[in-house]
Amino acid sequence: MSLNKDGLNKKISIAVIRRLPRYYRYLADLLRMDITRISSKELSQRMGITASQIRQDLNCFGGFGQQGYGYNVELLYREIGNILGVSDRFTTIIIGAGNMGQALANYENFEKRGFTLIGIFDINPQIIGKKIRNVEIKHMNEMDDFCRDNHVDIAILTVPYQNIPEVAKKVASLGIKGLWNFSAMDLKLSYDDIIIENVHLSDSLMVLGYKLNERRKAEETKKAEEARKSEEVREAGEAKKAE
Amino acid sequence: MSLNKDGLNKKISIAVIRRLPRYYRYLADLLRMDITRISSKELSQRMGITASQIRQDLNCFGGFGQQGYGYNVELLYREIGNILGVSDRFTTIIIGAGNMGQALANYENFEKRGFTLIGIFDINPQIIGKKIRNVEIKHMNEMDDFCRDNHVDIAILTVPYQNIPEVAKKVASLGIKGLWNFSAMDLKLSYDDIIIENVHLSDSLMVLGYKLNERRKAEETKKAEEARKSEEVREAGEAKKAE
Repeated sequence: MSLNKDGLNKKISIAVIRRLPRYYRYLADLLRMDITRISSKELSQRMGITASQIRQDLNCFGGFGQQGYGYNVELLYREIGNILGVSDRFTTIIIGAGNMGQALANYENFEKRGFTLIGIFDINPQIIGKKIRNVEIKHMNEMDDFCRDNHVDIAILTVPYQNIPEVAKKVASLGIKGLWNFSAMDLKLSYDDIIIENVHLSDSLMVLGYKLNERRKAEETKKAEEARKSEEVREAGEAKKAE
Repeated sequence: MSLNKDGLNKKISIAVIRRLPRYYRYLADLLRMDITRISSKELSQRMGITASQIRQDLNCFGGFGQQGYGYNVELLYREIGNILGVSDRFTTIIIGAGNMGQALANYENFEKRGFTLIGIFDINPQIIGKKIRNVEIKHMNEMDDFCRDNHVDIAILTVPYQNIPEVAKKVASLGIKGLWNFSAMDLKLSYDDIIIENVHLSDSLMVLGYKLNERRKAEETKKAEEARKSEEVREAGEAKKAE
């Protein structure tokens, strides 16, 4: 739970917060298409979330929707942006410049969302000195000095699993307050003032696997049902013949 | 909503399903530590989910917990694995072998979860022929033949944003039923039988930004509160002096 201090002084659950970036993306799409208002029903169809869930989510931070009018897209977009703090700027560094680190360094989208990459660190001599979008990959042992000279809000960790505890400890000692962790290890630090988001890509893949399985099972059930029905028809036919 | 057909014939909401991989990971950790049972309270402390949420989630698919005993870790681990279908095997191909594609190709974890990478495709002549974990990067124009000769369950899309509609159409025409999409574009295909999981890395980063902001605001409020208090003390002191 978190408190939206400058707004409505109302608690917004983290589950709702986690859905906001998605609303934000959809609303941006609508604005690009010059759609200025939308009903929860239409939004529901586009997003694949129930209309009642949408109304419940958006009511959390004030009633933007008007009965029979729908939501004002731009107002809602701006308000969600405010709640998410998209106009705030954060400085980030990437620790670990393997494929994942480099892929993230290349994501222009992060910059647009207010996350500015100012440093990349690794220990591999073969890539140190290389530049990604004008940011040079530096050796890990330069990180202390770098963090003294530059304020870093977020460290993005893409180092191998086994190195995570050590690197996380280091990051904490440098006073960095946000960790975005891709190591497949759920990071828990015993530092109260560090905020961690763990990214588990395989979780999403497992959900896809689950859905594929459900689809498979549903198809098998359907086939079995059809087979049963045609068997019934056949038996009925035979019973008729026998009469 | 989806129907768990071979189990309890009970609807498990997709929101619960999305949390299951996380339970699954934590339970695996417990098993590695030889912990055989755990209360919802302990699990709650480890996972940062409320105990009542845990009880509610796990009750969805049968009562594994016993009052005063807690959950049988191994039983619960196995059952969640069954629901998620972790013993099922899926074949995957990666389309787009840039940094993100190569990072995903290198994730050994996917293999462990039942997702076997059998092909990688790109159009960049400089990387075609290169092997990642024994899988050769092939040219996109070999994809048709490849998918005729090999059954592919899931295509992982890491192609640039603008190429997504074309590539997705292609994938659909090849009869691939699952799409794991990293393009930052919410993919919606007009093919009913394709299941898509869109991954939006920046969503998670925005949640981190939100949390950092909330922390910042809380600190500012605290400071302002402290300043107000010390001001009160000072004023009280002066008032006393003036008496």
